This record gives sequence, structure tokens and C-alpha cells, in this order.
Amino acid sequence: MMAQGLLTDAYELAMLEVYHAHGMNETASFELFFRTLPPERGFLLAAGLEQALAYLESLQFNDGELAWLSESGLFSSEFLETLATLRFTGDVDAMPEGTVFFANEPVLRITAPLPQAQLVETRLLNLVHFQTLIASKAARIVLAAPGKKLVDFGLRRAHGAEAGVLAARAAYLAGFSATATLQAARQFGIPASGTMAHSFVQAHDSEAAAFEHFTRVHKRPATLLIDTYDTEHAASIAAQLAPKLEAAGLHINAVRLDSGDLAAHARAVRAILDEADLQHIGIFASGGLDELMLQSYCRDGVPIDGFGIGTNLTTSSDVPALDCAYKLQAYAGRARRKRSEGKATWPGCKHVYRHYTEAGRIAHDIVALREEEIAGEPLLRPAMRGGKRVPGLPSLAQSRARAAAALAQLPEPLRQLGRACVRVDISPGIRSLAAALDAGDAPCRAS
Amino acid sequence: MMAQGLLTDAYELAMLEVYHAHGMNETASFELFFRTLPPERGFLLAAGLEQALAYLESLQFNDGELAWLSESGLFSSEFLETLATLRFTGDVDAMPEGTVFFANEPVLRITAPLPQAQLVETRLLNLVHFQTLIASKAARIVLAAPGKKLVDFGLRRAHGAEAGVLAARAAYLAGFSATATLQAARQFGIPASGTMAHSFVQAHDSEAAAFEHFTRVHKRPATLLIDTYDTEHAASIAAQLAPKLEAAGLHINAVRLDSGDLAAHARAVRAILDEADLQHIGIFASGGLDELMLQSYCRDGVPIDGFGIGTNLTTSSDVPALDCAYKLQAYAGRARRKRSEGKATWPGCKHVYRHYTEAGRIAHDIVALREEEIAGEPLLRPAMRGGKRVPGLPSLAQSRARAAAALAQLPEPLRQLGRACVRVDISPGIRSLAAALDAGDAPCRAS
Repeated sequence: MMAQGLLTDAYELAMLEVYHAHGMNETASFELFFRTLPPERGFLLAAGLEQALAYLESLQFNDGELAWLSESGLFSSEFLETLATLRFTGDVDAMPEGTVFFANEPVLRITAPLPQAQLVETRLLNLVHFQTLIASKAARIVLAAPGKKLVDFGLRRAHGAEAGVLAARAAYLAGFSATATLQAARQFGIPASGTMAHSFVQAHDSEAAAFEHFTRVHKRPATLLIDTYDTEHAASIAAQLAPKLEAAGLHINAVRLDSGDLAAHARAVRAILDEADLQHIGIFASGGLDELMLQSYCRDGVPIDGFGIGTNLTTSSDVPALDCAYKLQAYAGRARRKRSEGKATWPGCKHVYRHYTEAGRIAHDIVALREEEIAGEPLLRPAMRGGKRVPGLPSLAQSRARAAAALAQLPEPLRQLGRACVRVDISPGIRSLAAALDAGDAPCRAS
Repeated sequence: MMAQGLLTDAYELAMLEVYHAHGMNETASFELFFRTLPPERGFLLAAGLEQALAYLESLQFNDGELAWLSESGLFSSEFLETLATLRFTGDVDAMPEGTVFFANEPVLRITAPLPQAQLVETRLLNLVHFQTLIASKAARIVLAAPGKKLVDFGLRRAHGAEAGVLAARAAYLAGFSATATLQAARQFGIPASGTMAHSFVQAHDSEAAAFEHFTRVHKRPATLLIDTYDTEHAASIAAQLAPKLEAAGLHINAVRLDSGDLAAHARAVRAILDEADLQHIGIFASGGLDELMLQSYCRDGVPIDGFGIGTNLTTSSDVPALDCAYKLQAYAGRARRKRSEGKATWPGCKHVYRHYTEAGRIAHDIVALREEEIAGEPLLRPAMRGGKRVPGLPSLAQSRARAAAALAQLPEPLRQLGRACVRVDISPGIRSLAAALDAGDAPCRAS
């Protein structure tokens, strides 16, 4: 990961310089939330907290960064000296990764001296927004294709290296089985998966030779790509090869389709394989897939056993960004509220409480001030105290289990990829605080 | 930048292991191209070559990566030994950054021993696709708002850190003036720009105090954010403050709008400032902007002098991915062609030749085999020979100048953000090679 200090907007340092000059160093609370959900997303899945905490714990300006800031002439040398020793010493409360949530619910709260809490805005949003975006897309894919093997194929069209690697993590968290990206496999312990490219087939003088070489060299069940020239013809080649390989103790695990009408090809290929008594060879498909196509294949009983999802997963192509914000809720003991048109915030430090139906599905949520006594399951948990992670934070495997449980608790319309239908109530305490702030000239006492 | 060796798909190494086992080490040519342009893009702007070349020059597997690969059990130890010494020793021919191009034109060609050329597929696509995606989006924004100051505000919603930093570079290359991302400013020498956040205003007890503190501490012309509570009211506060600051030798450079009906607010704020004889204070706008909104503001004469563009720029939100591919064109002296449905490729090693109108606008392009004699300006240039960059490659400033010249050469409908209208001809030589390949059983002699 690159040095972190300058992974921020110029305006953060411009504001910090003023805070420094005026001694504005009291405690601030900022909350990170998503203002609205687009029609294509009935729920979101929290992800990225682990990377956010790692960022906060390691945040500092290194010598090279400080030297560049000095040369830039943008800031006074006296202010830059304070940056040399700046560390994040605050608290974080957050929804654990793998929590389902909705619009206007704080996902993460930072409580720290104002300059620290301000500085981290850009990278926190960058980290939490992106993984939440991808985990939420991946969750839809998981819901669309129950029981299917799902593999992330997305690095090549992801927006840079970090996007590819973190998208693999977010997809695995949401329930994907594996990733093609080796860096993600290494970094997060995600199973690696891969087949072959068309170039591999093309570089050989025949498909039969390509398939046989691949299986014999790897000595483990192979997935063969069969659409380089003619899909059904290549399926027949694989079917003829299978008994010969079996005799040598080698196995074809699956064939992969990557172009054309995948449903039609899958049925034709299934018939060719079944005719050859190769029911154990599966069919894996890839190529521009998204959750709506998977949902349709699964409903229609198309004989595809697994899917490689690339571009539409790692760019969340139908919704490549969410409307997230990181806003000041209280400073120096007083609640604060932004009233910008269409972007007004609910003031104060908040909690989210969840209520369930008798069948254990999510019924509705209540957003309330921390000091209000509200029934329900509290969703935000301590994640960092005094700049250090609290003990016992979940592993990626635990977060993945939480996500699976959360998806099982979704109301049925959301599991069917429908629009948002879970009510999020704003508590009386928040409403009266907002009214008092709007009525008074000065900010109100915060909790 | 993170270690590079594992920034690849598992299947690349699976294929390399077979190439190694069968001594398939002859020269391969792969071409990177974009199959089609979406309706929202009439042209693309090449970007990312510098990062691609840096990747190729530095590519190697470090000890930690090799140890992990060994532990993974996915590959034989004999094969992994060959990875320890693997370096990229091939040639690259590519369109210089800042070149305008269209569908089916090779943007970059790799000529190298097959394993090397295969391995680099994933990261090359990842780097060239993303910057080309963003430069192409940024070019539309530049064309939509001639003469306006354009600033990249996108890091927070970019897909990770690398995306934010490389998007800033791509946008600058395409003609943006500045970036808010300090890391990009440092890494690429792009001017940094920034104002203040709503939290800065909220943390103060009054907007007047926030504005005055900001201007006095920075001692340089300030841009004040005026939409935290009531835009026109804050504009009046700024107008009252301006003479007081002027008396102290301090200046308000601009006010920033970030919510509501930006055109209506801009007109109202312009009137307030003009009424106070503050014609020199500009209006800067941000908040969910894209090129179509900018085009409409500029056509309507809305008094906005500059724009901060975030999410829609750095995620290329209307088109978050392009249909790019990296395909084998020739191996061991013979042309190769993939015939997959809807994804067939034109075989052989190719060049692109451009023809201009008498007025110097782009007229049409011809894609031809390297050995064909074709008139026109050749668009691919040598970029790397034997694994080393050729001397005299352009700087970012030179690529930015090339982009500006290229945008000026676009046919007028494309400058108006219309659909693709430039003809790309496939030469007779390519067509007959493809026919020969399709007719014959064996691949044909390549150039």
C-alpha cells in the first residue's frame, strides 16, 4: 500500500491549518452514512472496516511527504511541524462488516480531536464506500444464484490494482467462493481459481492438444475453455478426451463457456456431455454476466454450475458509486447540522436499533440519539478506542459468516432483488434536536 | 505501489506452467484494443502507457510472492523456479498517451516470448483500461466547458487509492487544470486545489467567522463554501466581508456552490456580488456534476467560472468500464484468430493509419497489417525494445499537449459529444488473412 498521509484532499490540510491557528482542537464526532439507496439496491452490505482501521492505526506523514508539502509552498512551516507528529488517537464505532443496512443509518462514527477527525475524511470514504459498493453488488449476485460456485474474475477491468484486490475481498465477504486475483488470494486467504485464456488455445495447433496439455501438466481436475472457435465442437473434443485422461488418472472438472447465447450453449453442451456419460463434468460460464442474468438462468433451470463474474462485479457497473457522506454531527459538546438543500443531515451522535419479525427477518430500524433508550438490536459496536483496535474484532471468515446470516434475515422481496422496503424511523429525540437547532441561533448541546 | 508479481489472474500462471512444460517459448504478439464504443462515447483518449511501461520494466516475483506460491500448492516447484528469474524482455509498440482512437484499433502491441506476453495480460489491461476510461470521460468534460477551470474532486468515491491517483493523472492529461488529491499532485506534478468542507463551517459558531479565519490564516485568495445553511445569505456575508479583508490586503477569490439548483443559485449569487461591486469574485460549483450539465450551463450562459468534478469523473459513472481485450494475434511466426461468437478478432500484427480533412480534422482511419503499404499517419510508435523504454518518450506535459491537439482535430459532432462518426476501415490484407485462416485447417504465416 502506498504512503497514506497524502491520500487526502488538499482542502483537509487547508482546514487543519486554520484549526491549528485557532486552537480548534476539541472533540468532534463525524458520521459516515449513505444518504439514499438507488432503485437498483434494496439494501447495502457494510464492508471495508478492517482497511479503515488499518489506515487509522498507521496514519502518519512520512519525511518524503512532509518535504513535498514544504516545497509546495501551500502551507506554513509552523503548521507542517504539527503534521510530523500527528497520529489518530480517537474512537471508532461502526457496524461490523457483513451487516445489512439502509439509507441514513450511520455505518461508522469517528470521535476524535477535530483536526484528526477532519483529516481522515477522504480516505475513510474512499475505503468504506468502495468495499460497501462491491459487497452490496456481490450480495445481489449471491442471492441470484443460490448453490452456484461464484468466482471473481474482475481485476483486469477493476479501477486499478487496489480496486481489484479489495473487490475480491468484498465479494468473498458477501459469499463468493473464490477469486482469480492471486494478490487477493495471498493477502486475504481467499481460494484462488482460474482456467485458461483463448490465447492458450490459439497458441496450440489444435484444441485437443491444448486441453490435453493443460490437464496432464496440472495433474488436477481441469476446467477447459471451449468457445475459442466452435463451442459444441470443442465440447465433443473434450468428451472424446475425457476417457483417455481418466485412464491416466486425470480428470476434466468442467468446461467453460465465454461467448454467445450462454443458456443455449449450456443446454447443447450438457447434452453432448451427458450423451458421453460424462454427467460429472460441470459447466462454468463467464462473459459480461450480472445478477439479473444469473437469476434468469437459475429460474429457467439452465444447466450451468458456476459463474465467473468480472466487470459487472468489480465496477458495480449499474451503480458505480453510492451517495455516501461523512458529516460533522457534534463539535465541542454541541450538536451540528448541515441544512444544504437536498443534503440536510440529522444532527447528534446516533445509534441504529434493529427489530425483527417473529420469523427472524428484518422488520424495521430506528435511528436514535445515543442517549435515547430505544428497544432493538444495536448495530454499531466499538471498533477502536484511543487509536487502537479493540480486542476481538472479527476475522474475514467471521464477517463472511455474518454476511450470510444477514442475507438470510432479509425480507423476501429484498432477497428477490426488489427495491428498498425496510422502514428506517428517525427517533423523536433526533427530530426535536434538529428542530431546536433550526430554531435557535446557536448550536445546541450535544449528547 | 504494491508488489507486482501477483497482480495477475491465477490462470496466467496455470498457462505459463504448461508453456514451460512444453517449451512453448517462441515469440508471441498480443494486441490490446477496445472492441466497441458505447453510445455514450464517440471517441476514446489513450492513457496509461507510462504506468504500463513502468510495470513491464519492474516486473518480477519477489521472495515473499514466490514463497506464497510455493505454499499454495497450486504449481510445481520446478515451474516456480523459472518465475524467480522471469523478467519482461520484449517490445512494446503503442499509441502515445493523448492520442484519440476508435473501436477495433490496436492501442498497444506486446511482442515477447509467449510466457512473458501472456503473464502481463491482466495488469496491462487493468492499467490501460482504467486511465483510458477516465481520460475519455475527462475529455468530454473538457469539451463541454471550454475556458472553465476544471478540478478533479474524485478521490473519496474513486474505487480505491490507485484509482483516485491515476484518475487525477488521466483527467489532467485530458485537460483538467488541477486535482484535490495531494498524492496525485506530488506524484505527477499536477497543481493542487482545494477549498473547505461543510464541517469547517459547522465547526465555527458563524459562517462569517469561518470565512474570515480561512482567508486570514491562508493569506492567499480564498474560495469560500457558501451552501452550508442558506446560499444567498452566505453570499451576502461574503460580500460584506470582502472590503474588510481587502483593507488587510486579503482577497476572496471565489465562492463555491455545492447543492440545490446550481444555475439559479449562481445567478442569484452573481447578482449579490455584482451589486456589491465584487465582479472579480468568481463562482465555483460542485456536487454531482457531469459533462451534460456543464454543456447546458455553458450554453445557457450560467455565470459559473469553474467546476469541481468528483464521482462522475473518477468512476466514469455513465460508462464505468469499456469493452477492452488483449488477444493473441500471432505465435511462432503464424497469425492466430479467435472466432468466438460476437468476439471474433482480426488476425495478424497491425498498424493504424489516420487520414485528415483539408481543415485538419480527423477524416477516417485504416487498420492494416504491418507489412501492407498504406498512406496516412501511423499511430503506433515504438515504446519499448528488449524490455527497456526507448529514449525520448513524452512527459506528462507533452502528452497533455498532444491530447489538446487531438481534441482540436475531432470532427465537430464529436466535439459536441455526439456518437461515433469516424470510419475505421479494415484493410484488404487483414480481410484476406482472416479468410485464409477461417478456410484452412492450420494457422497461416504471420508477418
